[in-house]
Amino acid sequence: MMLRFYNARIWTGKDFVDGGELWTEDGKIKLVSQVSPLILLPWDREIDAKGNLIIPTFKNSHAHSPMVFLRSQADDMALNDWLFKQVFPREAKLTPDDCYWLTRLAILEYLSSGMSVASDMYFHLESIADACVDSGFRNVILQGITANNLQGLEKLLQNDIDTLGSKGELINYRLGLHAEYTNSEECIKALANFAKSKKMPVYTHMSETKSEVEGCVERHGATPAVYLAKQGLFDFGGIAYHFVHPTDDDIKTLKDYGVSVVSCPASNLKLASGIAPLKKLIDSGLNVALGTDGPASNNCLDMFREMFLATGLQKATLADPTAIDGEEVLKMATVYGAQAMGLDDLDTIEIGKRADFIMIDIHQPNMQPINNALKNIVYAGSKSNVLMTVVNGVIRYENGEYFVGEDVDKIFSKCQQIADRILER
Amino acid sequence: MMLRFYNARIWTGKDFVDGGELWTEDGKIKLVSQVSPLILLPWDREIDAKGNLIIPTFKNSHAHSPMVFLRSQADDMALNDWLFKQVFPREAKLTPDDCYWLTRLAILEYLSSGMSVASDMYFHLESIADACVDSGFRNVILQGITANNLQGLEKLLQNDIDTLGSKGELINYRLGLHAEYTNSEECIKALANFAKSKKMPVYTHMSETKSEVEGCVERHGATPAVYLAKQGLFDFGGIAYHFVHPTDDDIKTLKDYGVSVVSCPASNLKLASGIAPLKKLIDSGLNVALGTDGPASNNCLDMFREMFLATGLQKATLADPTAIDGEEVLKMATVYGAQAMGLDDLDTIEIGKRADFIMIDIHQPNMQPINNALKNIVYAGSKSNVLMTVVNGVIRYENGEYFVGEDVDKIFSKCQQIADRILER
Repeated sequence: MMLRFYNARIWTGKDFVDGGELWTEDGKIKLVSQVSPLILLPWDREIDAKGNLIIPTFKNSHAHSPMVFLRSQADDMALNDWLFKQVFPREAKLTPDDCYWLTRLAILEYLSSGMSVASDMYFHLESIADACVDSGFRNVILQGITANNLQGLEKLLQNDIDTLGSKGELINYRLGLHAEYTNSEECIKALANFAKSKKMPVYTHMSETKSEVEGCVERHGATPAVYLAKQGLFDFGGIAYHFVHPTDDDIKTLKDYGVSVVSCPASNLKLASGIAPLKKLIDSGLNVALGTDGPASNNCLDMFREMFLATGLQKATLADPTAIDGEEVLKMATVYGAQAMGLDDLDTIEIGKRADFIMIDIHQPNMQPINNALKNIVYAGSKSNVLMTVVNGVIRYENGEYFVGEDVDKIFSKCQQIADRILER
Repeated sequence: MMLRFYNARIWTGKDFVDGGELWTEDGKIKLVSQVSPLILLPWDREIDAKGNLIIPTFKNSHAHSPMVFLRSQADDMALNDWLFKQVFPREAKLTPDDCYWLTRLAILEYLSSGMSVASDMYFHLESIADACVDSGFRNVILQGITANNLQGLEKLLQNDIDTLGSKGELINYRLGLHAEYTNSEECIKALANFAKSKKMPVYTHMSETKSEVEGCVERHGATPAVYLAKQGLFDFGGIAYHFVHPTDDDIKTLKDYGVSVVSCPASNLKLASGIAPLKKLIDSGLNVALGTDGPASNNCLDMFREMFLATGLQKATLADPTAIDGEEVLKMATVYGAQAMGLDDLDTIEIGKRADFIMIDIHQPNMQPINNALKNIVYAGSKSNVLMTVVNGVIRYENGEYFVGEDVDKIFSKCQQIADRILER
């Protein structure tokens, strides 16, 4: 597949190329240039971008895609009711086939919001991977290991590596610990040893709620970051999801171990977990990216919402309107997300990197006038501005239509059936 | 104009009518019913809603539409720089014609976000009103009186009443005080006397920032709500915009005087003003509605963002995920907004009321599955779900197209020219 875009305002993730050309070939960027070389190639499609913006895709660096069946089913309730009445007993009923269809639904929403990759911590991983491969969407996929996984842990992980490692270039596998509070020290140590033997990073929920931190201090005499690092979990780096309630020591620990943070501000608001001190984390030199978390706790999968919150909440809580510049937020949602997940060929639009990018429609009222195109995206943008999402050189979403190898109405209907069955309607 | 909608899921603002019929005639609701009466009428259009939602339009209860020329021009900067370097000197250059075209641009965005009315506090009011009438959009329009208006105040206000009172049913005029901190006591008293002589409510910015409240206490020995009420400003009710930093006395005062609150959570975040205690205000019995504020401080004009923030910020700051139920938020954005502005024929979808309603597309991934349609709107919805906006019985927006009596590209181009001229590019 070869695509040519011309007359585009390209933000590569670093610089601007105005009135530019962008060519793709075999899933990679072949050319980014302000001038059009005098070459004719056998394009599959030549697309006049009409002055619209082309930017790297958004990277949804923390997700639980199959939870989409619980959307709007578990709102406005206390966390314990949410978790123990709505989530856990219902998740237990999910089959691999359910997870396949639910992931396909989530992917549609990701594409319409300009994402080309999600990172799913869940179970029935092979079904999730298959849904991605069949849709032409990327995933950085991982188990959320809990104490229950201790028996046969190595076998489980090795099996994941073998199975998911063969799914092709759209699927990356990582190691995941659900959280300190759902684990035994034995299990954490076993996972850490496995990670060390494979030289792999580990991703985990961390310091999402105040009570989680207090519980860890009670159990282990240390906060989650410090405790988990001491177990050797981050010897090859990793990611801390949420990190809403960090201590200064926690921040230093993550910095020392090269652990990135993925913040999920909308979920943190809706579940009343709090507001993560993102400016402080960034100023401390941590790499901070963004994720939507699962659709039961957000409830939408929309990076525009996360971007506005990432900066807006800092401005308000610090009483400082200069906190986290709009352009920095855009990098968190694109460049830094790829870097957090070790997807170094997905961070920017450069020759030789993977062809993941979106076209943003500036010919809509919320993007007019053009005083500053990037800040328009962060402060005024919406998923309605996403004209096109290209994943690995293939147009998967364009102007309200999905090109994912399956009928959209069939995906909707399958997922409604799953929700109705599990919720016993 | 007569419209018939069938096969709709109608939320009237009070109840659900499933699989319902909605008829309009001459700008009013003629029928809302679960069964289709056996009558044939000379419909201008019969529309199969395909099970989509029909709900009352959103009411943007606080706006400064012409400020759209400053979108993304004044971000990430300290409030004083924003106000004195970016806003005031540039606003001074706006002509009536500028305000006309800028308002037309803002109206496009309002319509695409499901609004049928904005309430503009600004200047060059007749141009704003004309832009609305020409677009078929409503406005509740008002001066933001400052100390500078003291000379000839009565004449100015009487002229407004005469001029804007003749603009037809889409335009309502109200009295407005810019704020305590931009006024002299003499001017406030003169406006209060005028309001009393006309038995009119007064709308004003109030307690938006901490320093504003502290300044008022220093100047007058009382907080803005208490001070302004004592001057007789709210003898016939009114609206307090923002109300981010109220005291218990302030809340009681507004309650006693029947003054509504319009909260603008996105603007309050972006300008670092703070987070208004909406749950406390609601629990105290105040009527609380939502507004976008101006596009220079938000920067988008999108009620979906405001709704998520209205509840999400309360949940997080109170550490209570049950704070402000999703359905209550939807009423703030629709029903309570109309009631705050005294538009009693616009609050709900009922026979005899004005035909202002929107159709929400549930056949998009972010609205699937349907576990709770109203919470889908509040927690997962986006302006991309607005299929159609009907104002006064006329379809003004449908599926990305605008029916506002003017070419959209011409509006864009006029506004870009205005921005370029004023910003000296």
